[in-house]
Amino acid sequence: MGQKVIKNGTIVTGSDTYVADLLIENEVISMIGRNLTVDGAEVVDASGCYVFPGGIDPHTHLEMPFGGTVSKDDFETGTIAAAHGGTTSVIDFCITRKGESLRNPIKEWHAKSKDKAVIDYGFHLMISEVTDDVLNELPSILTEEGITSFKVFMAYKNVFQADDGTLFQTLKTAKELGALVMVHAENGDVIDHLVKDALAAGNTDPIYHALTRPPEAEGEATARATQLTGLANSQLYVVHVSCDESAQKIKEARERGYDVWGETCPQYLVLDQTYMEKPNFEGAKYVWSPPLREKWNQDKLWNALKNGHLQTIGSDQCSFDFKGQKDLGKGDFTKIPNGGPMIEDRFSILFSEGVKKGRITLNQFVDITSTRIAKLFGLYPKKGTISVGADADIVIFDPEVERTLSVDTHHMAVDYNAFEGMKVTGEPVTVLSRGEFVIKDKQFVGTLGAGNYLKRARYGELLTNDSDKVSV
Amino acid sequence: MGQKVIKNGTIVTGSDTYVADLLIENEVISMIGRNLTVDGAEVVDASGCYVFPGGIDPHTHLEMPFGGTVSKDDFETGTIAAAHGGTTSVIDFCITRKGESLRNPIKEWHAKSKDKAVIDYGFHLMISEVTDDVLNELPSILTEEGITSFKVFMAYKNVFQADDGTLFQTLKTAKELGALVMVHAENGDVIDHLVKDALAAGNTDPIYHALTRPPEAEGEATARATQLTGLANSQLYVVHVSCDESAQKIKEARERGYDVWGETCPQYLVLDQTYMEKPNFEGAKYVWSPPLREKWNQDKLWNALKNGHLQTIGSDQCSFDFKGQKDLGKGDFTKIPNGGPMIEDRFSILFSEGVKKGRITLNQFVDITSTRIAKLFGLYPKKGTISVGADADIVIFDPEVERTLSVDTHHMAVDYNAFEGMKVTGEPVTVLSRGEFVIKDKQFVGTLGAGNYLKRARYGELLTNDSDKVSV
Amino acid sequence: MGQKVIKNGTIVTGSDTYVADLLIENEVISMIGRNLTVDGAEVVDASGCYVFPGGIDPHTHLEMPFGGTVSKDDFETGTIAAAHGGTTSVIDFCITRKGESLRNPIKEWHAKSKDKAVIDYGFHLMISEVTDDVLNELPSILTEEGITSFKVFMAYKNVFQADDGTLFQTLKTAKELGALVMVHAENGDVIDHLVKDALAAGNTDPIYHALTRPPEAEGEATARATQLTGLANSQLYVVHVSCDESAQKIKEARERGYDVWGETCPQYLVLDQTYMEKPNFEGAKYVWSPPLREKWNQDKLWNALKNGHLQTIGSDQCSFDFKGQKDLGKGDFTKIPNGGPMIEDRFSILFSEGVKKGRITLNQFVDITSTRIAKLFGLYPKKGTISVGADADIVIFDPEVERTLSVDTHHMAVDYNAFEGMKVTGEPVTVLSRGEFVIKDKQFVGTLGAGNYLKRARYGELLTNDSDKVSV
Amino acid sequence: MGQKVIKNGTIVTGSDTYVADLLIENEVISMIGRNLTVDGAEVVDASGCYVFPGGIDPHTHLEMPFGGTVSKDDFETGTIAAAHGGTTSVIDFCITRKGESLRNPIKEWHAKSKDKAVIDYGFHLMISEVTDDVLNELPSILTEEGITSFKVFMAYKNVFQADDGTLFQTLKTAKELGALVMVHAENGDVIDHLVKDALAAGNTDPIYHALTRPPEAEGEATARATQLTGLANSQLYVVHVSCDESAQKIKEARERGYDVWGETCPQYLVLDQTYMEKPNFEGAKYVWSPPLREKWNQDKLWNALKNGHLQTIGSDQCSFDFKGQKDLGKGDFTKIPNGGPMIEDRFSILFSEGVKKGRITLNQFVDITSTRIAKLFGLYPKKGTISVGADADIVIFDPEVERTLSVDTHHMAVDYNAFEGMKVTGEPVTVLSRGEFVIKDKQFVGTLGAGNYLKRARYGELLTNDSDKVSV
Repeated sequence: MGQKVIKNGTIVTGSDTYVADLLIENEVISMIGRNLTVDGAEVVDASGCYVFPGGIDPHTHLEMPFGGTVSKDDFETGTIAAAHGGTTSVIDFCITRKGESLRNPIKEWHAKSKDKAVIDYGFHLMISEVTDDVLNELPSILTEEGITSFKVFMAYKNVFQADDGTLFQTLKTAKELGALVMVHAENGDVIDHLVKDALAAGNTDPIYHALTRPPEAEGEATARATQLTGLANSQLYVVHVSCDESAQKIKEARERGYDVWGETCPQYLVLDQTYMEKPNFEGAKYVWSPPLREKWNQDKLWNALKNGHLQTIGSDQCSFDFKGQKDLGKGDFTKIPNGGPMIEDRFSILFSEGVKKGRITLNQFVDITSTRIAKLFGLYPKKGTISVGADADIVIFDPEVERTLSVDTHHMAVDYNAFEGMKVTGEPVTVLSRGEFVIKDKQFVGTLGAGNYLKRARYGELLTNDSDKVSV
Repeated sequence: MGQKVIKNGTIVTGSDTYVADLLIENEVISMIGRNLTVDGAEVVDASGCYVFPGGIDPHTHLEMPFGGTVSKDDFETGTIAAAHGGTTSVIDFCITRKGESLRNPIKEWHAKSKDKAVIDYGFHLMISEVTDDVLNELPSILTEEGITSFKVFMAYKNVFQADDGTLFQTLKTAKELGALVMVHAENGDVIDHLVKDALAAGNTDPIYHALTRPPEAEGEATARATQLTGLANSQLYVVHVSCDESAQKIKEARERGYDVWGETCPQYLVLDQTYMEKPNFEGAKYVWSPPLREKWNQDKLWNALKNGHLQTIGSDQCSFDFKGQKDLGKGDFTKIPNGGPMIEDRFSILFSEGVKKGRITLNQFVDITSTRIAKLFGLYPKKGTISVGADADIVIFDPEVERTLSVDTHHMAVDYNAFEGMKVTGEPVTVLSRGEFVIKDKQFVGTLGAGNYLKRARYGELLTNDSDKVSV
Repeated sequence: MGQKVIKNGTIVTGSDTYVADLLIENEVISMIGRNLTVDGAEVVDASGCYVFPGGIDPHTHLEMPFGGTVSKDDFETGTIAAAHGGTTSVIDFCITRKGESLRNPIKEWHAKSKDKAVIDYGFHLMISEVTDDVLNELPSILTEEGITSFKVFMAYKNVFQADDGTLFQTLKTAKELGALVMVHAENGDVIDHLVKDALAAGNTDPIYHALTRPPEAEGEATARATQLTGLANSQLYVVHVSCDESAQKIKEARERGYDVWGETCPQYLVLDQTYMEKPNFEGAKYVWSPPLREKWNQDKLWNALKNGHLQTIGSDQCSFDFKGQKDLGKGDFTKIPNGGPMIEDRFSILFSEGVKKGRITLNQFVDITSTRIAKLFGLYPKKGTISVGADADIVIFDPEVERTLSVDTHHMAVDYNAFEGMKVTGEPVTVLSRGEFVIKDKQFVGTLGAGNYLKRARYGELLTNDSDKVSV
Repeated sequence: MGQKVIKNGTIVTGSDTYVADLLIENEVISMIGRNLTVDGAEVVDASGCYVFPGGIDPHTHLEMPFGGTVSKDDFETGTIAAAHGGTTSVIDFCITRKGESLRNPIKEWHAKSKDKAVIDYGFHLMISEVTDDVLNELPSILTEEGITSFKVFMAYKNVFQADDGTLFQTLKTAKELGALVMVHAENGDVIDHLVKDALAAGNTDPIYHALTRPPEAEGEATARATQLTGLANSQLYVVHVSCDESAQKIKEARERGYDVWGETCPQYLVLDQTYMEKPNFEGAKYVWSPPLREKWNQDKLWNALKNGHLQTIGSDQCSFDFKGQKDLGKGDFTKIPNGGPMIEDRFSILFSEGVKKGRITLNQFVDITSTRIAKLFGLYPKKGTISVGADADIVIFDPEVERTLSVDTHHMAVDYNAFEGMKVTGEPVTVLSRGEFVIKDKQFVGTLGAGNYLKRARYGELLTNDSDKVSV
């Protein structure tokens, strides 16, 4: 690979904003300076643009089996769409099965991704029980696979749901091994009852998906998970926080000194529960778990991001076609596949609605979409920032262009866009992954399979680029 | 000035940690890269050291008249001591007098500092009344002097104390002009009564300074100031937060969305109220306002820094000799000059007690001691970070050396050190101000008067180094 | 006076509800039992009715000078209206003047009330400064006048407003003497500025009275007053709490163990800020200080009463005619006399909106309107309950009758009713004061001047009817 | 039964304190008055004494099977001891078994109690699963047995513990039927793990009972139970709240408007965790679940009672001999039977430590030990107060006598007293149950089997003594 110089952009990191040129050599950023001129290097002009570290999406479900179908975007369409949207790494959830070696699903996930991914990717590992077999397998999975985050579900009763004993044991095991526990925090027992009541009452429309998963059920589970984390002296990352109630619990845990982090998603910041009441079954397009909430929660979530009570944003990408997939739930909301297409717009939504509207700063934007995620999930400092020695995962971003989100223009494989018709400001123009163009002038120019699998460092074992251990 | 290259250090910013070399030209950092080699440049080896942006002390009282005496350290001894401690900019409080042009004390402060300061410096302006004259003078003071922060006292009844009307008007004026209001938050009326009661009861020892300024009086005033800020839709910076009660109020205000910030000081993080009970009048050495608090507050303050509820650390440097100054208060604690020597140890205390003990991260350390201060007070991005284009205000810091703080080795002019005998880890080895050595191998090599006066940008008008306006 | 037997009513106290008969002899309740038959006693049938202890209104301003006029209802019309409404005792505010003996206004208040009041009455004493003269006069005022509650204003700058020093000293003095400090909690300095701004902007309509006295100004002052109370180790009663923000502060103080109590008023529970926007200057009818608030506060206030975070209800009776008095403020809201007619409807509003709508229990109703007030203000156990030995201040109340509040039917002297057209359930049918009928079958049958002046016990010195000291 | 007159006592209710005489006829209080003289009535002198409504103990486990043994005090010794201590009604927990008719254990409980109880008694019903059979049986159990409270355990994994689904369904069923759900709130899954860890580490002493049941596990479960209550729109009573963390959660739920109540116990108010470290296995005497806590919690619990955040006190009586029962746990703390002797001292402890030390008022004492319990559990107004028409369950209490609690003088059947050597002030002198003496001059004079079984009203269906429905 030849050298590249990105010139005249405004470089933005988690704390800094400055104008300089970047030199890229051998996949990494090797130099930052004023007026860099390097013979033979390809010059990429970034005048008038921000130069961001590539986004990292910590929460995707590509080609994932769910409710008798499979999520539409796979590692090919999903990562291409991600790249268009300014994301250069994803971490996908490897779904395990009780009573079977954890190695099997890991192999399956490698098989799904290896020849398709156009950007780098890693895996989280779902834990649904903690048997002796699981305890025996885990250490080598961290060492050999570099999988250093475990996912536990407190919802989806009789499917994914783990009990408190399993969660607690996972937290203790994670502490020993150096992994971060991720939790889907909703009280599955309560939801199960509410769902049965709704169906018994003949309430089958998509809106009942929201009404049977109230914010109290999320807040309760979040509080419980944080409390167990404190008791286990472990570390926790609460995925897809949808409401103020849950965000408050995370804040309270942090104030107690617990090592707890919270992620929200674009949908919860921008959309609200009324979308689920759209006629002609269109509400089904907006079925996520946890569900969209009353609109007033949005301000609370933005403020939580601003004040650091929530720290990251994931897409929870899990897309299904409206026709042929979502419509499995016609007449029974419980059969609507949960999830939506979000991997492409995560980055731009946060910029347009967050930075442009003054809700967060430019540096917070970078921290929330990239740096903090890299640090939490053992990717920093190779990923997550623009500094000398870091991988040249770079987004050249035009902050002024206005455009309209739409299924007509997006690159995801599904037949609708959750933000259809919404105007946003700002767009990734050029995206590099380890120094190679993936998106150039808004066109995909990458290569299937060019993405590397990411072995990740253990939680808290962050390294500088010179191998000195440093704190987060 | 010739070029310098700082080699092999671990560069630390508010969000990043990486190993690289720095090139300094014409007072600024011009390039950051691996293996930088520049013919003719002086090489400074930073192997095994952190390379930090120089500390910024937002809260000093150099050569300040107080209680019939004058604080001992002036702009010469004070800034030399600051530089030894890793601080490369200070912002001092210009004390005004009612009924007189604000320009007079500004001139006095220029006179005190101009030929003495060895590092860069700026001024805050005290506001004790808001008359038409004051309103007429202020706009040009911002424009011409670059003074963009106002200080209001809620304590020191009949001396500095302003009433709520004045505070409110100052907040509104600051909003209009683009200034940040700083407040000393203690209820002076209550303290005045408690002091009279104590004296009437014959309670004259130094400890009564603490007992007549209870944390409730600070918490109350902090709550009041934040509430007035919300009502004025303005911006507030609470100086020297000493206790949990006050920190909580700042947190609550921020959660309401108010634009409120909080500073604490090393003394409140490390020392406690029992120091004021030392025999032989030694308690007088530890007389600050607000006073030292019960020890349990320290954990709360550290946690507030960690969680971002407090954002900066100032020294509140205001030193008086124990013999000849502090002893004015023998037999009457109200006559003990308030304040202590802190400008030199602020940076090291936070590193040793904070980073080394795992209470804050390395990046938070930089943000708290430098970056955030630069952003809040209109100095960023020239000051407050290590990035291309920034002033070469740099501290090369050995993180492993152990040493003992003592009056015998410190560089402040006073006859005692508040941390006498305390062991700390880490020490500034070399300090540069705009590319020139001020401290070299722990020896002062700077020049009196080499420090520049800092005209500061308005609040929120932060500039990149390329003059694009960006948000904080 | 002959004996009376009240038969077949449902007696309600602060904790009990039971059916029994009452015997009244010599102004007091002498016996309670089943099927009481006393030869020669007059029988009053209370079948189907509640038998409540007479209401106590702790907050009235009868014939009070304010803003160049005088409140319309005096001790004649005011106490007659009170009695119609189920109130058998009032405590009025004696307004003092700086630099003058406190005895003067006390004499004036005696003169206003002596020959007019048809029910018993007492006085609170306003304190606006604490001079040596004041300190010398107070002890005998408690002893001789039985005035054991002091009122301090934190608002009405340059009129009634006291500074924090005065409030603090009053709290300390009250603690020594055994008095309860009452506080009007709004930040007068802030309000003064906001009012000037509004007038300068030409905003002169009644609604600006609300907009220049925001809830934050009340919450702030409430927090300050409670904090000073804690520091003085004294006792505080916050009058006319209008909003959630203020109620929260009282709750927080109580949780700290501070001896703090809170009163709200019917207007804040039922009316809201939109009333002040009524056309044709009608908004002026709804000008209270603090002002009516956004409607959502009402639920919070009800819940605070239910959970015991607020403990009493006062009327803040201070009535002015719409024509001739309120209209002084046409074109300048600051000239609208503050206050409204409320003495008559306090009791019924709380019953209808509180008990009937399930927001508070029947026993809480009695506690809030009568028992707790008697205990706090040194009237218990002669006043405030139905028990053997208590004064026969009794309300026979029909809980089922429906009626409409209106100026056409009310007994207050003013030309409008704040609840005009509102339907309520329940009405006092017969009211006795110390065993004598004041209202009989809804008609006034009392005697001018029959009310006794109430010398009240010191705070916390509550006596049983057998003179044993008991705790509250 | 002949008439009795109780003369000259100070009668105390939940809101009143006054001196009067009481006439008792046909088991009830028929008249209250001054100087009552009734020919032929037995006169009981109560001069200098308080006349309280008999205490109601809402939480006893008499002759209860637990951990392979049976609690020592049965309905004979237990109710005799209760009467000595001023308690005239108890509600015992009927422990059910999964997969079996609920009627069986109810019959067993009747058999245990019928010929033994010397005071009145009722039953709560434990619910561990909600099957169709359970749902079919419950309505008639309420109607026929008057059992209107259900107990759910969130702890004791694999023994009593119910999952969240069961708790939620119980809450919904209780709402429909008019029952109050009682919950033992500790996270059994977490405790199970902590216990296994402790045993694996060889930590077998009694103190590990506390260390494996941390307050966080109680706070978590309390929060969860209250949240489920809110979602079910039902009613909840949290038994034996031991710590601040749990009390806070109850307070928060009530502030949200949830219908949630909290009970604490004497042991948590007076004893602390250090008792469990007593040598020679004596710590086993103090093994309760939840366990004793760090001492600072006591102030918080007292303050919660004072401010109404907790509302009742139960004994959680479940006594085991130290020798022969508690020592089953030597070498393995998990085998120590949980519980202690408390039925006798509940009332006196609250008076001596609460009223006498100024932490609660005399009226609060009555409300906490009797009135509120009667109202919550459907016994009011027959039980829980002194008013005309109420059962003559009366305690004549000498408030000044000082005595020392001891196994040597107590009347419980076990071989130790948890408060051995503690001095208390106040003692029940004479106790009547429905007008008959049970304790006379401190001697038991009652009759085995004289206690009646109490059929209780449904939750919220409180009746006056005239059968009008009234609110709580």
